[in-house]
Amino acid sequence: MDFKWTFSNRAQEMRSSAIREILKITEKPDVISFAGGLPAPELFPIEDLKRASQKVLDEYGQKALQYSLTNGIQPLRQILAERLCRKGVEVTEENILITGGSQQGLDLIGRVFLNEGDVVVCESPTYLGAIQAFNAYRPRWVTVEMDEEGVIVEQVEKAIRKHNPRLIYVVPNFQNPSGITLSLERRKRLVELGQKYQVPIVDDNPYGELRYVGQHLPSLRGLGGDPVIGLGTCSKIVSPGIRIAWVVASTNVIAVFERMKQGVDLHTNTFAQYVLYQYIKDGHLDPHIEEIRKAYSHRRDVMIEALTEYLPNTVKWHEPDGGLFLWVKLPQGVSATKLLEAAVDQKVAYVPGKPFYPYEDTDNTLRLNFSNANPDMIREGIKRLGKVLREKVKDADMREAQKN
Amino acid sequence: MDFKWTFSNRAQEMRSSAIREILKITEKPDVISFAGGLPAPELFPIEDLKRASQKVLDEYGQKALQYSLTNGIQPLRQILAERLCRKGVEVTEENILITGGSQQGLDLIGRVFLNEGDVVVCESPTYLGAIQAFNAYRPRWVTVEMDEEGVIVEQVEKAIRKHNPRLIYVVPNFQNPSGITLSLERRKRLVELGQKYQVPIVDDNPYGELRYVGQHLPSLRGLGGDPVIGLGTCSKIVSPGIRIAWVVASTNVIAVFERMKQGVDLHTNTFAQYVLYQYIKDGHLDPHIEEIRKAYSHRRDVMIEALTEYLPNTVKWHEPDGGLFLWVKLPQGVSATKLLEAAVDQKVAYVPGKPFYPYEDTDNTLRLNFSNANPDMIREGIKRLGKVLREKVKDADMREAQKN
Repeated sequence: MDFKWTFSNRAQEMRSSAIREILKITEKPDVISFAGGLPAPELFPIEDLKRASQKVLDEYGQKALQYSLTNGIQPLRQILAERLCRKGVEVTEENILITGGSQQGLDLIGRVFLNEGDVVVCESPTYLGAIQAFNAYRPRWVTVEMDEEGVIVEQVEKAIRKHNPRLIYVVPNFQNPSGITLSLERRKRLVELGQKYQVPIVDDNPYGELRYVGQHLPSLRGLGGDPVIGLGTCSKIVSPGIRIAWVVASTNVIAVFERMKQGVDLHTNTFAQYVLYQYIKDGHLDPHIEEIRKAYSHRRDVMIEALTEYLPNTVKWHEPDGGLFLWVKLPQGVSATKLLEAAVDQKVAYVPGKPFYPYEDTDNTLRLNFSNANPDMIREGIKRLGKVLREKVKDADMREAQKN
Repeated sequence: MDFKWTFSNRAQEMRSSAIREILKITEKPDVISFAGGLPAPELFPIEDLKRASQKVLDEYGQKALQYSLTNGIQPLRQILAERLCRKGVEVTEENILITGGSQQGLDLIGRVFLNEGDVVVCESPTYLGAIQAFNAYRPRWVTVEMDEEGVIVEQVEKAIRKHNPRLIYVVPNFQNPSGITLSLERRKRLVELGQKYQVPIVDDNPYGELRYVGQHLPSLRGLGGDPVIGLGTCSKIVSPGIRIAWVVASTNVIAVFERMKQGVDLHTNTFAQYVLYQYIKDGHLDPHIEEIRKAYSHRRDVMIEALTEYLPNTVKWHEPDGGLFLWVKLPQGVSATKLLEAAVDQKVAYVPGKPFYPYEDTDNTLRLNFSNANPDMIREGIKRLGKVLREKVKDADMREAQKN
């Protein structure tokens, strides 16, 4: 007898990440892919992590392999809190909860704050993983435009007055996907809005340490304190595979996260937490960040140079001050989704911007990752992309012209 | 200005795990605690895991530290599938999804199957972690009594007819907390019910490999196939700290779990998955299971002997064929919750049974863990518990007698 499976409403509505589907297409041999958001694996600090693993198992193996606290092991929380303090965010270990990647932080935020139909205000475009995490709790999205200084704060205030949101979600540093950084002035005004209207603000900050141009800007929590929930992660600065990230919030909020995380997965990998702690304690983190900062900064420059050389001048892009991504705008009416097939035929891949808009209403943008491929591959890949775009964008321009 | 936090309905309803709160009380110095469910840390295979970690980082460090597939790394899924096949469960790697502990498996099951108000049929008592995981999805619980052969299947059928449940949740082997094992005859009838009424059955099996008495019984999925979703874990047989567990289900169900897990945490720790894979591949798992089986079997025998010697004969207990727990029944009217304070004063601790009932309607039971303490401590601890029980149960008996 066949068994008929019936799933919950939220499961029926949940689609697979568009990116994960796209990544499957782009995994063909010889394709130079700018589609993922992967760090450069050849720069992983394998030897230092090996020594840290050894030390952890030699010195406190029994603790490292046992069940541990839901909010995270104390030494890791403490060393992260000290690090945050040095960056101007006044916190103690009590303000920190360790999560299984920032994706789990996003899921917990949805779980802790969102009832069905609640409004989330976000940047347009916004981080796809946040859309996916929050959508399990079935919110409504209200998107706010960005310009070169980040999200337009007047429009955030309008959205708050009109929609009474439960959360404001932003990626202030080198946003994924746009690469845009929120200016200091706007950071201040945004946290004032959070306080004035009593709306929690989520500051998702995976890339803050990867700045290549300009000066470090204070985090929203550093500026605005309590209404801000910060998300940090070791994924882009040490290793994404070990899935260690953290939520920073006031202690009463941390307590609620902790209760919810008990039901979700009891606690994050104890061993991986100790390994990361040992790695930081032994002084490896800052030199390593310096090393990848230099490498990624160079790759960014190479990509910008190649874009300037190979792309038709009707195509525009944003030059990010840090992070992993470059955001490209095609002329109005050109579909980046449709172009992808032609690009993959030319053995180059990117992610269309469409899934980064909660209602997928924009299709003439695309995201390029510059951290994963080496400089030579970046040049060759952008050359291939240029060829595709020169052909297809010209075609589109001509069709537009014929229509008019 | 103070910030007023407002949480979602589910967060407001979620209480902290009663056990985690109790564990805090029992963590006083000199207390012999039978309260947790911890494996014996002195038996962790630290050296073999250290060698596995080394090998993984030496041989495929870049892969082990990078993002990986949501359903889990292929070699681990394959080696687990082969293991399951040898135990009579016909599956391939496509039937397996790796999770961050079985607790995440439980959360995913809730997420994938439960709409608010849906009914879950479970054993009475049942596993606290399942109550906690599913409660985030706000189901109704229908509990079914157990006897020495496990859950009473006629009552399960009645519950199905009356309540039209979305899920049946059972822990067939050495159940947490009761230690009871579901008989072969009842296993067969239970999966027939799942098929007949088209209700998915969750077979949560963390202890199956830890049998000390009698013969291994086939898993529900081995007997009944598709309506059964199996949960397995390395927590009790290798290490709980590395948080690696697995869901076994038909491929269409795995696909839905995979979509949901993308939003939940992208994927489980890649490094830990490789380490576990390497550990199993190098042939360490079965000898290690044999070693802890012997140790725990001895501890179980010691505890039963001590209970027989020290406990008043109005107190009854179940002798489990495996697992980590012994279940104690106090005379009607005696509150195990109230007794705990007196026990901790005598420097011994247990977990009251109350939180293992979804509606907390029974309070004369308690759970004793025998895996974590060594044999001498078990004897001493049970002696102390005996002293408390002889005093308090006598008091209660006398009060009962005076009432009558």
